[in-house]
Amino acid sequence: MEHLLSVDQLDRDDVEHLLAVARAAEPVARRRKVCRALEGAVLGNLFFEASTRTRMSFAAAFCRLGGSVCDTTGFTFSSMAKGESIHDTSRVISGYVDALVVRHPELGAVAQFAQATNIPVVNGGDGPGEHPSQALLDIYTIGKEFERLGKSIDGAHVALIGDLKHGRTVHSLIRLLSLYRDLRFTLIAPPGLEMPSELCEAVGARGHHLEMRQILRQPLEGLDVAYATRIQRERLIDETVEGYTPELRVDHAFLDACCGTDTALMHPLPRDSTPGANDLSTDLDKDPRLAIFRQSDSGVAVRMAIFATLLGVEQQLQGPLRDVTWRSPRRIGPDDAAFYTLDSIVCP
Amino acid sequence: MEHLLSVDQLDRDDVEHLLAVARAAEPVARRRKVCRALEGAVLGNLFFEASTRTRMSFAAAFCRLGGSVCDTTGFTFSSMAKGESIHDTSRVISGYVDALVVRHPELGAVAQFAQATNIPVVNGGDGPGEHPSQALLDIYTIGKEFERLGKSIDGAHVALIGDLKHGRTVHSLIRLLSLYRDLRFTLIAPPGLEMPSELCEAVGARGHHLEMRQILRQPLEGLDVAYATRIQRERLIDETVEGYTPELRVDHAFLDACCGTDTALMHPLPRDSTPGANDLSTDLDKDPRLAIFRQSDSGVAVRMAIFATLLGVEQQLQGPLRDVTWRSPRRIGPDDAAFYTLDSIVCP
Amino acid sequence: MEHLLSVDQLDRDDVEHLLAVARAAEPVARRRKVCRALEGAVLGNLFFEASTRTRMSFAAAFCRLGGSVCDTTGFTFSSMAKGESIHDTSRVISGYVDALVVRHPELGAVAQFAQATNIPVVNGGDGPGEHPSQALLDIYTIGKEFERLGKSIDGAHVALIGDLKHGRTVHSLIRLLSLYRDLRFTLIAPPGLEMPSELCEAVGARGHHLEMRQILRQPLEGLDVAYATRIQRERLIDETVEGYTPELRVDHAFLDACCGTDTALMHPLPRDSTPGANDLSTDLDKDPRLAIFRQSDSGVAVRMAIFATLLGVEQQLQGPLRDVTWRSPRRIGPDDAAFYTLDSIVCP
Repeated sequence: MEHLLSVDQLDRDDVEHLLAVARAAEPVARRRKVCRALEGAVLGNLFFEASTRTRMSFAAAFCRLGGSVCDTTGFTFSSMAKGESIHDTSRVISGYVDALVVRHPELGAVAQFAQATNIPVVNGGDGPGEHPSQALLDIYTIGKEFERLGKSIDGAHVALIGDLKHGRTVHSLIRLLSLYRDLRFTLIAPPGLEMPSELCEAVGARGHHLEMRQILRQPLEGLDVAYATRIQRERLIDETVEGYTPELRVDHAFLDACCGTDTALMHPLPRDSTPGANDLSTDLDKDPRLAIFRQSDSGVAVRMAIFATLLGVEQQLQGPLRDVTWRSPRRIGPDDAAFYTLDSIVCP
Repeated sequence: MEHLLSVDQLDRDDVEHLLAVARAAEPVARRRKVCRALEGAVLGNLFFEASTRTRMSFAAAFCRLGGSVCDTTGFTFSSMAKGESIHDTSRVISGYVDALVVRHPELGAVAQFAQATNIPVVNGGDGPGEHPSQALLDIYTIGKEFERLGKSIDGAHVALIGDLKHGRTVHSLIRLLSLYRDLRFTLIAPPGLEMPSELCEAVGARGHHLEMRQILRQPLEGLDVAYATRIQRERLIDETVEGYTPELRVDHAFLDACCGTDTALMHPLPRDSTPGANDLSTDLDKDPRLAIFRQSDSGVAVRMAIFATLLGVEQQLQGPLRDVTWRSPRRIGPDDAAFYTLDSIVCP
Repeated sequence: MEHLLSVDQLDRDDVEHLLAVARAAEPVARRRKVCRALEGAVLGNLFFEASTRTRMSFAAAFCRLGGSVCDTTGFTFSSMAKGESIHDTSRVISGYVDALVVRHPELGAVAQFAQATNIPVVNGGDGPGEHPSQALLDIYTIGKEFERLGKSIDGAHVALIGDLKHGRTVHSLIRLLSLYRDLRFTLIAPPGLEMPSELCEAVGARGHHLEMRQILRQPLEGLDVAYATRIQRERLIDETVEGYTPELRVDHAFLDACCGTDTALMHPLPRDSTPGANDLSTDLDKDPRLAIFRQSDSGVAVRMAIFATLLGVEQQLQGPLRDVTWRSPRRIGPDDAAFYTLDSIVCP
């Protein structure tokens, strides 16, 4: 693997290799161990579109491997504003750093960065296109939730809920999940925001079962994962959405009425918590099924795995690592589920 | 101590512990020794309101302890703009980093960050609220000035000058100083910008002596510290201040006429040096009583002490540390007072 | 050398010392070796005017020496906006960090930063003034190109092309080159954008030969270096330039018709690659004479040399250094010339 641009470049072995490296990275990601494999290396963390959480997650992952990070945000006044091509920007910055993470508002721009350089380029989101590290951390989270419950991804029942037309994270996730066997997908979207049909066909062609719904509040038998998404208002231009109403709001009542006692509830975050928003409800925040923070926490281990794989230092995560010397809390958030302590993650 | 949110959470022992750790950190802060106690740790340095100097001081302190820093500035386009709650932002970023510094324009916002996480949160300033690290570096500076002169904080005479109504730094400082014994405070403010009366009462109730004045140019007998503040124009909305005139300008003439030969002159900085500004005058810049840069320099050691205490690595600052390998100037600024060299600070 | 503010402060020995240190830094700059000489040190990278590439190049150089970097960009909302003087800003930040890089839109501002501090200050560009690190990397690049071809800077023929009136990089470069002996300069500029006459006189007084031209497409006999520059639109206020037309566009046809088979083609970058721009053409991108990316790549080694010299750690770049543990590509860009691999640079 030279770059990570799209989930399409991955087969099931690639995915399982990355997830195994992420598992090995957990003691470092969870601040039990210190790794200095990339000491001396520098990451170019190029966010031509702002995204604080994604930028920090990549940066923290590179730092936890021992490297240093050079950030850039926005492109007002930058050399691109002076007419510089993506080719030149990429080639020049590649002379300074050892790997690039690029987020860019235009589809395909990150692939252009990759064409101009031999250092690894990671797609941190290219407009309506891909966000492969998010899909990888989603599937990694599903794997960890299932491991605790003795379940397997093969044969699982996954519901994807919300704006399935524009959400690049659900597009990437369903493609990754379709590398596994015999899944059952329930796709719940308001009229006009359905999953693109060509994507449904591709998933169906791999032998998975798909069911489309417009109504949320119906039983979801044997549901293993409910994956809710935020409406991407910033991508909805000149489109009226009639169906994005409180009926699609995922909350405690829905979870109790339609899901199971061990359904994992996920969301790519951020969620809109302002009054009247039809997003994932905060009335679930103390429910142990809510996996959204376990999901975001997984981002560091998964992004460490991406860097370690691209830069060829996976082995150094397996070796003996020294203990951290500072104090870490056993639970990151005071409301984290009882089964979710740092120790349980590191030594399950 | 789990978080550092307010000076109110500190008693005199806490303060003296922090100041002792800061003293131990000086050889590192002053570039004589290298400390790697936090190697592998990551700081989230979240400035939702810009403040270059405070942000860099915290960042430098974390780096001097061996850690790495992820910065963020402003919140345009951030996930908060998409309706994310402080709870979610805090909890998510806490999964990436080992400690948070938060500056936020709203009173109480930093405390909300702390409620959502078990990693240490440091208040870097919350609007009109608190700025505890500034108050700690102020009292540390007073202690160092007094140590050189053989004086003690107990029984000292401190004048606070300027906008005492809005200045959160003077509010925090007077509360910290009131933990000591038998101080004499002279509070000099123009009409309408006086220290809030409930704060005066609290200080008085602890047995200290307070005197209010509206006129600066009167003798200040036995004055140990003159602490001047900038008018907080950005906090003065719809308030006319009649008395903020050149008469309140602290300059060489005032110092010679009304203060003593060993009065330490302090200011939280920045000061307004544009023509006509009624702020601390630059005609004092070569006067050894001007302690403003010794004060800002102390910020690194004090913030190292805060991080070391919150993360439990104070002991590592006591142990044997290796020498720096690069060249450091003996005096940071060419105008620094003769008694103020790096060596004198480290080994007084 | 206390600060690096201007090329005027350098004599030929200084330049050759810096270039020798840069040569020693190549194995680290090119990711073959790891250096930790500045472990524990912090750089203040202050860009009051945005310049992503220059900022990242300095940051990467400091990181490659083992140090940490605190960045700042722009000065909206900063303490300077509150009326703080350059003196105060410089003195305060000098208490936090071990060296400063300053880019500022105003001529002379960086020198003011240097007056207020004893820590090293590097001029990262001060408006229409100087950009000495760019001139040093240019001359270093010329030296490396010539070394491969068995040529020497003494006696070389160098053409400077484009806006020679405003381009601070060509001003600094011609001053540095004039420290060598018997050069021949051909200065090609449209009417109104000629090299300032006092600079021409100073170069002529050192015994070099200068020829001025307004037309590009004429033979350049024995040309060793063609140095093209971008029109500085942002510095052209109320000036009409008649001659900045496609006739001044440096492209493959020009190179073949007027230059030699071993002429090195340079440009400070960024170049304007939008359609219709009269800048260096992309039709040269696979021509091995195009040295623009070898030039930008050299920025890291040269800036490492600047920091190492200012902070007194040059010797540590000579000593035994450990190998990197991650994977680096042999060529940075897929189109890099066959003679330009990491190994060839490190062990020529």
